[in-house]
Amino acid sequence: MKIAVLGTGSVGRTIAGRLSGLGHDVTVGTRDPQATRARTEPDGTGNPPYSAWAADHDRVRLATLADAAASAELVVNATSGHGALPALEAAGADHLADKVVLDISNPLDFSNGFPPTLFVKDTDSLGEQVQRAFPRARVVKTLNTLTAELMVHPENLGQESSVFVSGDDAAAKATVTELLTSFGHTDVIDLGDITTARGTEMLLPVWLRLMGSLGTAAFNFKVVR
Amino acid sequence: MKIAVLGTGSVGRTIAGRLSGLGHDVTVGTRDPQATRARTEPDGTGNPPYSAWAADHDRVRLATLADAAASAELVVNATSGHGALPALEAAGADHLADKVVLDISNPLDFSNGFPPTLFVKDTDSLGEQVQRAFPRARVVKTLNTLTAELMVHPENLGQESSVFVSGDDAAAKATVTELLTSFGHTDVIDLGDITTARGTEMLLPVWLRLMGSLGTAAFNFKVVR
Repeated sequence: MKIAVLGTGSVGRTIAGRLSGLGHDVTVGTRDPQATRARTEPDGTGNPPYSAWAADHDRVRLATLADAAASAELVVNATSGHGALPALEAAGADHLADKVVLDISNPLDFSNGFPPTLFVKDTDSLGEQVQRAFPRARVVKTLNTLTAELMVHPENLGQESSVFVSGDDAAAKATVTELLTSFGHTDVIDLGDITTARGTEMLLPVWLRLMGSLGTAAFNFKVVR
Repeated sequence: MKIAVLGTGSVGRTIAGRLSGLGHDVTVGTRDPQATRARTEPDGTGNPPYSAWAADHDRVRLATLADAAASAELVVNATSGHGALPALEAAGADHLADKVVLDISNPLDFSNGFPPTLFVKDTDSLGEQVQRAFPRARVVKTLNTLTAELMVHPENLGQESSVFVSGDDAAAKATVTELLTSFGHTDVIDLGDITTARGTEMLLPVWLRLMGSLGTAAFNFKVVR
């Protein structure tokens, strides 16, 4: 499948690398590809410069957000929470129309330090904001409840764990569930419509405390039933 | 141990019955014991009248909130979210002083229908509100992330799942962890101080959506790591 991954951070790279490894035709979208390529220092969260990652992933193209989305059949939003709507605006509503938009972003607000709070919650969600802003897109919220490496290699935990899908379009959720299954996920729970993203986005506060308490991000929730 | 359980709903009854069965000396606290005993109709959530439950649990006493708390070594708050602070006020700050207060309540606001929203979240929690209102109490938030029956019989799931403790007092958390272990819990995760209750209280929105999606409350989260 032709897939655009918006975002060059660790989530974007991890998803893009995995999709490419599975044989998909992947383009990473970024605001300014030249600037992204030219960086030689680690980014704000300590990731090596994009060019170092790209050297190991030469089948993954880099393009503007609009160009990446224009040619894609499915668009992954792997930006930060604050970056989500601006990136999707730059990608262009027409380039998202009728496409599955797999949204991983979390509405984390770091302005008051760590742990972050949520800039939208409880009566609304970032997933819903994205769906409202792009009504022709078929938004599916998923993978926002675990660390990047486990999104694409859940078997690394050695035990089954769960991921969730939220969205208004059943066929879009089926497409996303197929992708998740190809990553190795064996327990994909359909929570319902896009408003159920409130639930998974509000998992972040306990996820962050667990990371602190366990001293690792290498964990995930299994819904035991 | 002499234990007061504040609240006569399904959580209060389930905890009180289990503690009594384990040999503890349990008193349930309610605003008006005579009125509680006199009711002959199911309560607002469909529980049978308290007297029917009490007939099967004759070692569990019923008393006012203040009397129950006064004679207890440990106090369980098993009220609704809105009921928590009023019930603890009625129990009396002096009767809570230096005692472990095991708080199960969730800040659920049903005023806009189902699923409920949270009346405190993200930058504060009900657990913290209780601790601030009763600074001499040793508050431990726990068990608010699963259905009543599984709180006291986690083995019913057939697989290990996790519960969490949040509180400022390490000895209080150790006491609560011992109780949880006696209920059958084998994975008790200490999240840290009472502010980490923000995390577990914010689990409720996804818990509620899972209940809808799975069609049952008989599930729990296991933190796989």
